[in-house]
Amino acid sequence: MKRKNMVIAQSGGPSMVINQSLAGAVLEARKSPKIGKILGARHGILGILGGEYVDLRKPSAKKLAAIAETPSSALGSCRKKPDAADCRAIFEKFRELDVGYFFYIGGNDSADAARIVAEEAEKEGYPLVVYHIPKTIDNDLRSCDHTPGFGSAARFVASAIKGDDLDNRALGGVKIDIIMGRDAGFLTAASALARDRADDGPHLVYLPEVPFSLDRFVKDVKAAMKKFGRCVVAVSEGIRDKDGTPVAARFAAGEKDSHGNLQLSGTGALGDFLASHLKAKAGVKRVRADTFGYLQRSFPGVASKVDQDEAFAAGQTAVRAALEGKLSKGTVAILRAKGRKYQAAFAPRPIAEAAKFTRSVPKEFIAKNGHDVTAAFVEYARPIVGALPKCEIF
Amino acid sequence: MKRKNMVIAQSGGPSMVINQSLAGAVLEARKSPKIGKILGARHGILGILGGEYVDLRKPSAKKLAAIAETPSSALGSCRKKPDAADCRAIFEKFRELDVGYFFYIGGNDSADAARIVAEEAEKEGYPLVVYHIPKTIDNDLRSCDHTPGFGSAARFVASAIKGDDLDNRALGGVKIDIIMGRDAGFLTAASALARDRADDGPHLVYLPEVPFSLDRFVKDVKAAMKKFGRCVVAVSEGIRDKDGTPVAARFAAGEKDSHGNLQLSGTGALGDFLASHLKAKAGVKRVRADTFGYLQRSFPGVASKVDQDEAFAAGQTAVRAALEGKLSKGTVAILRAKGRKYQAAFAPRPIAEAAKFTRSVPKEFIAKNGHDVTAAFVEYARPIVGALPKCEIF
Repeated sequence: MKRKNMVIAQSGGPSMVINQSLAGAVLEARKSPKIGKILGARHGILGILGGEYVDLRKPSAKKLAAIAETPSSALGSCRKKPDAADCRAIFEKFRELDVGYFFYIGGNDSADAARIVAEEAEKEGYPLVVYHIPKTIDNDLRSCDHTPGFGSAARFVASAIKGDDLDNRALGGVKIDIIMGRDAGFLTAASALARDRADDGPHLVYLPEVPFSLDRFVKDVKAAMKKFGRCVVAVSEGIRDKDGTPVAARFAAGEKDSHGNLQLSGTGALGDFLASHLKAKAGVKRVRADTFGYLQRSFPGVASKVDQDEAFAAGQTAVRAALEGKLSKGTVAILRAKGRKYQAAFAPRPIAEAAKFTRSVPKEFIAKNGHDVTAAFVEYARPIVGALPKCEIF
Repeated sequence: MKRKNMVIAQSGGPSMVINQSLAGAVLEARKSPKIGKILGARHGILGILGGEYVDLRKPSAKKLAAIAETPSSALGSCRKKPDAADCRAIFEKFRELDVGYFFYIGGNDSADAARIVAEEAEKEGYPLVVYHIPKTIDNDLRSCDHTPGFGSAARFVASAIKGDDLDNRALGGVKIDIIMGRDAGFLTAASALARDRADDGPHLVYLPEVPFSLDRFVKDVKAAMKKFGRCVVAVSEGIRDKDGTPVAARFAAGEKDSHGNLQLSGTGALGDFLASHLKAKAGVKRVRADTFGYLQRSFPGVASKVDQDEAFAAGQTAVRAALEGKLSKGTVAILRAKGRKYQAAFAPRPIAEAAKFTRSVPKEFIAKNGHDVTAAFVEYARPIVGALPKCEIF
């Protein structure tokens, strides 16, 4: 096979470990005689269209390791869905640069963008191996048991709830914490990992998978206040009423990205609404709401080690699979090996399996009462999230 | 001197290191033959009035060390200003328990509460040594060069801004981060510690000490967008207009504690207001706002080592000073030893020096442009906050 150049880029929301995948792919690519230039496009496909590249043969292994440890997308990101015209422009650029391999690190929308590029390349007869490398803090890729980025964001969430529960123990009342997750409640569910003792919060957990009712919410909080004398509530930003309308849609500015997703993060409106409602209806004097916001995906120094390692391995696997050539448009599925001890397995799969459609928190992870998760979820998430800081009380 | 029992309690907003002060005081007290029982009152003076105590002779040194590492107030907290009647009830309880020493860990309101108790004890002729042990993430005690709790909260803020700045590099636009600090901007100022490179955020820093103008804000953001192509803004929750009215007062629920302080934290309203204003007036499409909220004081695992050690030493110092008996109602001043190498010194001072009145960020720490801090502030804060996670970019 003729030596070809490769382009790699990052897309969608950043995570704490997306640079691990970049480093894994780049270091693997450097080992192969089949790959010439290793080009990092800045800001996803926008950098390809604009010809903005980082030469990824240059950075030392030490520098790459430091980048891998750094949160956010070191190459920059975008939320751009390419159309046929964009693809033609991309192939024109790729032809000039003799690009034969394209790797795109991101979530389901990014997988879909990569799928579009791959399919348009086939139509155009441009020879291109395209691999999607999975990343999403939402943990909602259908192709994966769990997704790189989730474990670290979940570690932030569980740590934050752990600290916040101690804060609530000290001053009482109700504390509402709004957690990321537009359609899937995995990250909100991870708040349950904060519990060590029977009366530890979160005392209530609301996922987008369970229709949300304000009346029920008030009743749940009253019951928790009666039982615990205080209440910590983990709420997904994506909670929706029985008609499927997001509760946050009442306040959202209506801003949408090019994949049609409504902006839910970067505002405290949902938390404030729920807090006001409780003050008025639940007879609780002290109600506070925090929205964890972008810290969940970008806070340095709290990444899960398992998540870091798996993100790196996902990048390596994509490059190996691309070079092997069995699938010309693929994604990397992350599976869980059977057995007592936690172990992940990585396998190339057709890109369509990761693209566009997402998965939700499965029923066996949702408690029957509709406001908690099950022990099965905790067992599922614990090894991915890793140990949390130990907290002691009297 | 006759052997007397001691009561210790925590008050006001929790911090990541307030339990260090508790451990320092308890371990020091255990060494002295002058002290009998060591009683931890739950929820500050409420626990004294209600007779709710933890026997602090019981926990092992190992358990106390684990408590010290744990954020929030392990004994529980309160925001209660005692009146003369409360004090009489307290002394009645103290008499029954033969209490001769009272230690109160907290900020300026807690120092004031302790001062009231001490003065009422004198009036009543009840022999009581009262010591305030300083704690506040706001860093606004007039008696201290800096206050235990600040370094760790500042470490959270600087880390969060560091990660958020990388996130903003990836996706662009304006990111507003609302940081705690009702009257003093020290914690917001600490966002500047996140900078390693000339173009690192925060690009704008707004403190309550500088009158805030919305028009000026829009101009500042436009200028930063022009210069950096993106903008990270650190805003104190306590920013106020030229008449001294807090900007947040426009949306605050009007909830006040018994010291008369308006609730500013636990809501995202200020950030959302500033974000909407920018979208409308600055012509920036992507504007996001996060409010760091209670995570700043409760997030486990990010405490500053120097802050932890100093909080412990403050607790020790208070007990030593109380036993020495030179001052019967004191606080612990934390001073900075002169010299090139950073070193703190601890000294007993009259309690009035910590009580009630607060200090602001001094002029030499505020940049002339009104939207930044000076190098002198960074030099001041760096040793207290400690090293931040290293982040690398291309």
